[in-house]
Amino acid sequence: MTVVAVCQLGLAVGEVESNRAAAAAAVVEAAGQGAELVVLPELCDSGYVFTGDAEARKLATPAADSPTLHEWQALAGGYHTTIAGGFCELGEDGLLYNSAALVGPGGVLAVYRKAHLWDAEKLVFTPGDAPPPVVDLPFGRAGLMICYDLEFPEWVRLAALAGADLIAAPVNWPAMPVPVGERPCDVVRVQADACVNGVFIAVADRCRVERGVSWVGGTVIVGPDGYPLAGPVTADEPAVLVASCELARARNKQVSAHNDVLTDRRPQLYRQVTG
Amino acid sequence: MTVVAVCQLGLAVGEVESNRAAAAAAVVEAAGQGAELVVLPELCDSGYVFTGDAEARKLATPAADSPTLHEWQALAGGYHTTIAGGFCELGEDGLLYNSAALVGPGGVLAVYRKAHLWDAEKLVFTPGDAPPPVVDLPFGRAGLMICYDLEFPEWVRLAALAGADLIAAPVNWPAMPVPVGERPCDVVRVQADACVNGVFIAVADRCRVERGVSWVGGTVIVGPDGYPLAGPVTADEPAVLVASCELARARNKQVSAHNDVLTDRRPQLYRQVTG
Repeated sequence: MTVVAVCQLGLAVGEVESNRAAAAAAVVEAAGQGAELVVLPELCDSGYVFTGDAEARKLATPAADSPTLHEWQALAGGYHTTIAGGFCELGEDGLLYNSAALVGPGGVLAVYRKAHLWDAEKLVFTPGDAPPPVVDLPFGRAGLMICYDLEFPEWVRLAALAGADLIAAPVNWPAMPVPVGERPCDVVRVQADACVNGVFIAVADRCRVERGVSWVGGTVIVGPDGYPLAGPVTADEPAVLVASCELARARNKQVSAHNDVLTDRRPQLYRQVTG
Repeated sequence: MTVVAVCQLGLAVGEVESNRAAAAAAVVEAAGQGAELVVLPELCDSGYVFTGDAEARKLATPAADSPTLHEWQALAGGYHTTIAGGFCELGEDGLLYNSAALVGPGGVLAVYRKAHLWDAEKLVFTPGDAPPPVVDLPFGRAGLMICYDLEFPEWVRLAALAGADLIAAPVNWPAMPVPVGERPCDVVRVQADACVNGVFIAVADRCRVERGVSWVGGTVIVGPDGYPLAGPVTADEPAVLVASCELARARNKQVSAHNDVLTDRRPQLYRQVTG
């Protein structure tokens, strides 16, 4: 069993030092509960609700030279864990990316640039063109994608087909109206993503209003059958959730005597999907 | 506004006459509530839990010569509605298909053969090779697919890309364990299918144990935001649910100032999905 943690943080745009401190405290708390993988929110160093490109640019750093990633490496080493979290990246091409990194004691294992940008992000960031990475870790294979990416089943499928046992998903889910008694659709979509692919998905969301934007607070760990193992929080408060995940379950895609969710696909009939 | 009905029926394998009568009674009830489209369950003439190929073959009829489809046409004409439902089809090639038809007063508008077969269906039926049909009706464009098809986001996407406003989905969802307090994942997947595509989905499920198999009873109508408009029933009892659907909502895929769930797709990056 692998202990996975997801951290719901209250952050503030531009307050990079205190944001990093909040993330570090959550990592320490999660590691104290035995977490081998800790997931942090999207853009968790810079905050999210930028006034525009200029503000985001001031908060962005190159991945190779990011104090945020350096700190995560130190935390991963000191607390024997691996960290997946979002950061504001200045590309070597001078463009801004809404990125996430997977960082272990030995350094950065993967950097991923969000490929599907949400709303005003399109005014600030350049979308990534690379598929979600899947990294072989000692406890299993971890994929990485960000927030709105999860709303494109094609994208989640790519990670599953690439062998991800678990998808780590830093998010900032802006709150939308939810009918009484219903679970927010952001969480519902993740449940579906998990069960149609037979993978674990670990989502870390935001809390605390930022420049008028409030959040779903939907931090959750979902199992390969689509049901939550921890969360969703769905409250506007910080939280560190952990779940013991038998990641090997994601290697068996069988859902009945005659069905396997990946080999039952009929890719030759789906070609129109890519057009 | 278009009134859509979904009918959860208690059926019995082999009892074709009484199954047809149950479906007809439900159509009459739905039409009495103004339904312009009535959705019936999968294989709702034959029943589902066959002993094998021989039994299914005895219950199958060619689409062109199906008493079930003839009756639906008469009902559609008499009650000014359109019917989507599942039937056991004997192909002109001598093979058996788990099919569904869309039938109006003028006759059969589309026949669809389930492309993703569930469990022992693979021992009886041949999977269809044609994409889900999308039919232009006076009130909107209706797509058609069956049960396990809904677990392949690629398939639902095809119908959305082909312009479906609503997907009619006859199902027979066998009951699986559901954690206390959770909505069955069959329903959760349909919610996700609806909101990632901005379409309505109308699902008609079974009830009443058949040869030891019980059912989710998950009959539901979901709106393009992913939340239920009627149901889910999630009880082992017959039901006729109706919802007034503003189908034009499905023509607007915008979900924020800068986002559209279909044009935000990045098909050139998804090619690996089809491989």
